[in-house]
Amino acid sequence: MFMSAQVGVIMGSKSDWATMKLACDILDELEIPYEKKVVSAHRTPDLMFEYAETAAERGIKVIIAGAGGAAHLPGMVAAKTTLPVIGVPVKSSNLNGLDSLLSIVQMPGGIPVATVAIGNAGATNAGLLAAQMLGAFDPAVQARVEARRERVKQEVLESSDEL
Amino acid sequence: MFMSAQVGVIMGSKSDWATMKLACDILDELEIPYEKKVVSAHRTPDLMFEYAETAAERGIKVIIAGAGGAAHLPGMVAAKTTLPVIGVPVKSSNLNGLDSLLSIVQMPGGIPVATVAIGNAGATNAGLLAAQMLGAFDPAVQARVEARRERVKQEVLESSDEL
Amino acid sequence: MFMSAQVGVIMGSKSDWATMKLACDILDELEIPYEKKVVSAHRTPDLMFEYAETAAERGIKVIIAGAGGAAHLPGMVAAKTTLPVIGVPVKSSNLNGLDSLLSIVQMPGGIPVATVAIGNAGATNAGLLAAQMLGAFDPAVQARVEARRERVKQEVLESSDEL
Amino acid sequence: MFMSAQVGVIMGSKSDWATMKLACDILDELEIPYEKKVVSAHRTPDLMFEYAETAAERGIKVIIAGAGGAAHLPGMVAAKTTLPVIGVPVKSSNLNGLDSLLSIVQMPGGIPVATVAIGNAGATNAGLLAAQMLGAFDPAVQARVEARRERVKQEVLESSDEL
Amino acid sequence: MFMSAQVGVIMGSKSDWATMKLACDILDELEIPYEKKVVSAHRTPDLMFEYAETAAERGIKVIIAGAGGAAHLPGMVAAKTTLPVIGVPVKSSNLNGLDSLLSIVQMPGGIPVATVAIGNAGATNAGLLAAQMLGAFDPAVQARVEARRERVKQEVLESSDEL
Amino acid sequence: MFMSAQVGVIMGSKSDWATMKLACDILDELEIPYEKKVVSAHRTPDLMFEYAETAAERGIKVIIAGAGGAAHLPGMVAAKTTLPVIGVPVKSSNLNGLDSLLSIVQMPGGIPVATVAIGNAGATNAGLLAAQMLGAFDPAVQARVEARRERVKQEVLESSDEL
Amino acid sequence: MFMSAQVGVIMGSKSDWATMKLACDILDELEIPYEKKVVSAHRTPDLMFEYAETAAERGIKVIIAGAGGAAHLPGMVAAKTTLPVIGVPVKSSNLNGLDSLLSIVQMPGGIPVATVAIGNAGATNAGLLAAQMLGAFDPAVQARVEARRERVKQEVLESSDEL
Amino acid sequence: MFMSAQVGVIMGSKSDWATMKLACDILDELEIPYEKKVVSAHRTPDLMFEYAETAAERGIKVIIAGAGGAAHLPGMVAAKTTLPVIGVPVKSSNLNGLDSLLSIVQMPGGIPVATVAIGNAGATNAGLLAAQMLGAFDPAVQARVEARRERVKQEVLESSDEL
Repeated sequence: MFMSAQVGVIMGSKSDWATMKLACDILDELEIPYEKKVVSAHRTPDLMFEYAETAAERGIKVIIAGAGGAAHLPGMVAAKTTLPVIGVPVKSSNLNGLDSLLSIVQMPGGIPVATVAIGNAGATNAGLLAAQMLGAFDPAVQARVEARRERVKQEVLESSDEL
Repeated sequence: MFMSAQVGVIMGSKSDWATMKLACDILDELEIPYEKKVVSAHRTPDLMFEYAETAAERGIKVIIAGAGGAAHLPGMVAAKTTLPVIGVPVKSSNLNGLDSLLSIVQMPGGIPVATVAIGNAGATNAGLLAAQMLGAFDPAVQARVEARRERVKQEVLESSDEL
Repeated sequence: MFMSAQVGVIMGSKSDWATMKLACDILDELEIPYEKKVVSAHRTPDLMFEYAETAAERGIKVIIAGAGGAAHLPGMVAAKTTLPVIGVPVKSSNLNGLDSLLSIVQMPGGIPVATVAIGNAGATNAGLLAAQMLGAFDPAVQARVEARRERVKQEVLESSDEL
Repeated sequence: MFMSAQVGVIMGSKSDWATMKLACDILDELEIPYEKKVVSAHRTPDLMFEYAETAAERGIKVIIAGAGGAAHLPGMVAAKTTLPVIGVPVKSSNLNGLDSLLSIVQMPGGIPVATVAIGNAGATNAGLLAAQMLGAFDPAVQARVEARRERVKQEVLESSDEL
Repeated sequence: MFMSAQVGVIMGSKSDWATMKLACDILDELEIPYEKKVVSAHRTPDLMFEYAETAAERGIKVIIAGAGGAAHLPGMVAAKTTLPVIGVPVKSSNLNGLDSLLSIVQMPGGIPVATVAIGNAGATNAGLLAAQMLGAFDPAVQARVEARRERVKQEVLESSDEL
Repeated sequence: MFMSAQVGVIMGSKSDWATMKLACDILDELEIPYEKKVVSAHRTPDLMFEYAETAAERGIKVIIAGAGGAAHLPGMVAAKTTLPVIGVPVKSSNLNGLDSLLSIVQMPGGIPVATVAIGNAGATNAGLLAAQMLGAFDPAVQARVEARRERVKQEVLESSDEL
Repeated sequence: MFMSAQVGVIMGSKSDWATMKLACDILDELEIPYEKKVVSAHRTPDLMFEYAETAAERGIKVIIAGAGGAAHLPGMVAAKTTLPVIGVPVKSSNLNGLDSLLSIVQMPGGIPVATVAIGNAGATNAGLLAAQMLGAFDPAVQARVEARRERVKQEVLESSDEL
Repeated sequence: MFMSAQVGVIMGSKSDWATMKLACDILDELEIPYEKKVVSAHRTPDLMFEYAETAAERGIKVIIAGAGGAAHLPGMVAAKTTLPVIGVPVKSSNLNGLDSLLSIVQMPGGIPVATVAIGNAGATNAGLLAAQMLGAFDPAVQARVEARRERVKQEVLESSDEL
């Protein structure tokens, strides 16, 4: 059965894809339909607003937005929708993503962005966080998240033997 | 009609209440039932695990956890539940909450925490983010979030006259 | 003779006025007509876009935008106009404006923001920088900037006697 | 027709050329005549003062100055001219350009430097910012800046298909 | 004669082993019996609690715990035992271990973690610190620590000839 | 019965006493005999060496050393004794103790310092960590540490009612 | 007997005097003749160059220069003289002097600045460092420095009784 | 004619030699006799004290001390001599020398260290600063420093042609 996308994954530049792909990998693994797109806050601002304004009506429940440096995409999308927005601070070339992190997380009171870790761990966790938001209302998704955790736990337990 | 709590608001110390109260104020304003509790990762670790393990079965859909310094509460609660967990970095006395922020947001791949800004803005946004997560599945909540945004917008527009 | 505004001074919140007033003081002192307005990137995003899109046709030559924390206003305005945009990082309550600075200055290649210092010195300098941009094409303005520098130099020279 | 230089591009060391070349590339692309020179604040201080003092009379409208570490060149040039000065923080070997950024941007009230991002993105944006300052008074330049933005926008839109 | 482990060396992930092995090397060199294990605060939280609760009764006198990023392992183990816990901040991929350091060292009053340097030097010193804690009550161990210091001193003295 | 000091509490300046007193308060509370002294690495270097060299023979089992800024006291004492040394980074006037922390914790491989949090929480934890080191070999001390933890836990549990 | 100034104490602004006075206090105490002056790198650049160029011929042996923020005074004076220049990073209003420190200490190879601590401690030490430079060639000065150290040592020793 | 060493160059570890050699290269170039030695604050503390105590009587006029991480060598040597001490923050493996810098420069009032830049530029400048201290009392040295500056200036002037 075809399902329309529940998660929108956007990023400020094609170069962010190496990081943001990890969020999509999680959504694939957990069988959550999603859409993905390059949407630049600074180079395609009108597209960004249109994307944010129409996401809910397309059935999107959560948006994942990744950007680096003066990373305005997550916060500006959040300003144009009341869907929850997850921000992924992509590692920047000079300041290692500290600028990305502060630009995303330090939102003023009124418009929240759910910020995750800098870089790859953050992108993976963005996928999981989106799944957990859906899972709070969808037992099938929650069950898949829990099954994944159990698998990861077993891997950790077994890894001790390899020290 | 009585409604059971949908959001759990916890904090590492009673001294975090001045900050975390702002999250509760938002939940009150948006008519979202919640519970609140002091749960310390370091001083009441067993209570923390029990809280996290039983939250979903009590009907909680989102947990908001605030802590400062080496702020382990949000991440450890996230490790014990698949509900989405929002972390509020409470301002610390020496490093202004930078330690709180990094301790909360830099989670390893596998266990996400939805991190918001340091301090008061973050606590307000934690309440709003919880509401937006619920609102993605509850049109009434979403409508109240949107009405609040409209009110805030009007306030901004009017404030220009006061410069 | 009435002159239409040449500089647009905007800020993300009325609370930024205490800082941004210093930019206006310089413009007053140098007899440069300006307009001022509260325009919030996150709370009034549509107004922000409209402001940026229409500034040039209103005769504005330079925009000064001040904001704090995850300060997206200068960069987003810059994305919607080809007028030069000066960004003032307003001191934030927890990270002393370091977050404001990085959010404003670390723009990706393609959309520049002319960033000045954090806080009051930056606001004063934003007014002067706007004047210098105009002065490069307007000898009368340039002469007033130079006269101001001469006055300041004399003050410094005289201050040595007060040690 | 020969046109005299409108922009002066200077840098503290020949080793900054790899970065500063990106500013010149933009000026070439936008057909803005410029001059370029190594001018060291610390090793050729008299040349620096002479350069700054004579720039305006040579027809220069904007100066772009790049330097790293304790980067004094932009601020000292700014102290010796009322032309607008754009500062490019060149990435430094140990602190990744954070020292360059703070040395350039944190100017005291009275002498502004229009600071852009650390490194390559900043150098590109320095070229664009200079063009935008000129474009505010020169419709032909402004038209070329706008055409460039449109091209970049199209590239972003097309890049989405390559994810 | 078989001796039961006096030191427990744990780490949040198998990938921390390259660092934590240096602690074990010191314990081997100083003939201090130890056990080692992967115990993840976030992926195996119940195992972590069980490990901490049972360490003392197994004869463990000191626990060395290494972790990176939002490094919660040392502090959470410390919350579940009154044995001294040494925390090793493992270098993280984006913030060079500054996040690991602050997450480990900035513990609230009540639950201490004996924190050592980021990375390899820290792991080596964790082994030595554990030995010194034991050595304060065990003259044989203290003698071996002192002999090692003497050897290292001689190496330094001789290294001067190689400049 | 008189007991000779088991813990040596030293600090770089009398002005550190406001912080370091919290370590002594814990030792008093847990009935652990200690001595206290101002010993400055920079102003009384010979006294520092003598203190460190003679501590073990006086029966001291653990040294707690607090200092701020370029805080060399803990590391230099550690270089002159094989007793475990706990370092307390005292909050400094300009950099909030970040300089104190890095000066104490980033010891090279070979000479460990058991570093605790900046400021008051760190001083309290230094007292507790010393007690836990002793308690690993002294059941009576360990029992008092555990009783204190139990009391603190009860306080946390009760504090929830006061929100 | 009148002695001409051996040390030149300069500062970027009269507001730096509260800090820089501490350097002068030391010079007074050690009976070292000095001159003091406000010399601003940005507001009186020509005076700065003239000051630096003529210092040696006036008999000055060491220059102490204090400045805050983008603190260019010490480095620019150092570029114009081969006398040793001591830089005092004055505490800045937003970044606590970290910007001042990096702007002063991170000089490129070729032009050194002898940098001391941020703020009051740094100003005191600038006076002492100047004295020690002179004292290496003037036994009377060195004797006064040593006598001062002895007095300070006694104060530390006595302060222990006041804990 | 044989001349005894006027500058003592010491470093905390043989691995610092790659950096500290640059200081010696300058001293060689400027014909200033020097001695060099590995002296570790933490691994050879007694040697360090002896070195510092005897330097002046051996004819040393300035000490250059390089160290990384918790870099205590320059400050501790400074505590044991009234000769001027130049501190070189060697780049550290995890925090890029920021820890070395703060450990060296943030000395308390009373014991100054003349701190230069992190890494290679700092080592070069340490050699030059030592030469300038000597040159203030030795015209021949000062002449060689000035000649070197002139050569470097010519190199900069010529490098402009290579852009």
